[in-house]
Amino acid sequence: MATQAIPGYRYGDPSLPRAPYSEADLALLQQALLFTEEDATALRRAGEILAPHIDELLDVWYGFVGSHDFLLRYFSTPEGPHGEYLARVRQRFGQWVLDTCRAEFDQRWLDYAYEIGRRHFDKKNQTDNVHGTPPFVHYRYMIALVYPIYATVRPFLERGESDPARVERMHQAWLKAVLLQAILWTYPYVKDGVF
Amino acid sequence: MATQAIPGYRYGDPSLPRAPYSEADLALLQQALLFTEEDATALRRAGEILAPHIDELLDVWYGFVGSHDFLLRYFSTPEGPHGEYLARVRQRFGQWVLDTCRAEFDQRWLDYAYEIGRRHFDKKNQTDNVHGTPPFVHYRYMIALVYPIYATVRPFLERGESDPARVERMHQAWLKAVLLQAILWTYPYVKDGVF
Ligand code: HEM
Ligand code: HEM
Repeated sequence: MATQAIPGYRYGDPSLPRAPYSEADLALLQQALLFTEEDATALRRAGEILAPHIDELLDVWYGFVGSHDFLLRYFSTPEGPHGEYLARVRQRFGQWVLDTCRAEFDQRWLDYAYEIGRRHFDKKNQTDNVHGTPPFVHYRYMIALVYPIYATVRPFLERGESDPARVERMHQAWLKAVLLQAILWTYPYVKDGVF
Repeated sequence: MATQAIPGYRYGDPSLPRAPYSEADLALLQQALLFTEEDATALRRAGEILAPHIDELLDVWYGFVGSHDFLLRYFSTPEGPHGEYLARVRQRFGQWVLDTCRAEFDQRWLDYAYEIGRRHFDKKNQTDNVHGTPPFVHYRYMIALVYPIYATVRPFLERGESDPARVERMHQAWLKAVLLQAILWTYPYVKDGVF
């Protein structure tokens, strides 16, 4: 997937706002999540396995969102689902899977995590210049969706790795990485000074 | 564990404040989490397995918190860890494991979830009348601790159930139930109107 070809994708863009959390904050969060170097390694391996199947994975996730009105509404105007908005986000979502698996967990990565969080909240709709869709995604679903995004990846990992212990290792690393990002992304939802 | 014997435990107390979420809100959250009747059943079975080992489980969790200064501080005064506070919370924590496994997911349960959330935030320290400890637990760790609280339960489930598929079923149900509560508990941390 060629990065330049994805409209609105800004990972690594030095003009992004600086995230309100540092690499030191991240290190403690990773400890709380039991995230180690072994997880980073397992994630990289997961990325190799998932890369050729991103479209299929996105079909599963979009199928899940599309089959729940209370989720699909965030991509919808009063006229119904916004096809172009869904398609634009889908491209960046696919890139995010790879970026998560290859994450370097440095300030650049934190800055884009902050940006993605804001795109669900106070910057929603701006990147794709969309109108008539809800102004933000509600907090509760930002955390809840960690579960399906974690669970549905498993069959894809199993297809690429026959050793169940290695599948489990990659799957746990993926869970930690998604949970970590859900935390970082919800920064703007949280009251001042309590994050 | 005799409920009456636990100081500060108020599950089912009709004078508790009403939670700001309803059973209808909960039903959608459960859908987002892929939480079904099968999970409720698996949780009840997990409760039977865990019940005789609650103290041992609490040793593991307290060991985890105790070995990370950035977590232990929430139980500490400038003089160091507050032994009585730790001991009081520990009793209610043990009861919570059982309550989670037997949860009826009704308004009463939601009301105590809201209370537990507030005990980490704007009602922290009040129940045990503790002084000199931090005024609230930071948001980031409320979500991050879902992971260790999920992961460390597995060996206990394995001890009580030899079929790996059934262990996995219970473990997934436990993850969903802990994630669900972390969402409900963080309501007071979140800006008005965005939960
Ligand atoms: C763990 C949970 C979630 C993950 C991993 C996730 C992932 C993503 C990613 C990677 C993007 C594109 C970011 C970019 O612009 O580079 C995105 C955007 C978006 N997501 Fe999520 N998301 C989550 C929760 C949700 C929920 C609960 C909804 C509600 C249906 C949602 C709706 C959206 C929308 C509407 C956008 C476009 C935002 C914009 O206008 O720029 N997301 N999401
Ligand atoms: C998923 C994450 C968490 C779970 C499942 C959990 C569980 C619990 C439970 C069951 C209680 C007792 C509730 C009652 O009074 O009936 C409690 C209280 C408490 N927890 Fe947590 N907790 C979590 C996150 C945290 C974190 C990250 C900290 C920080 C170290 C923390 C520190 C405390 C403290 C200090 C209390 C006593 C609050 C008070 O003053 O009443 N908890 N927790």
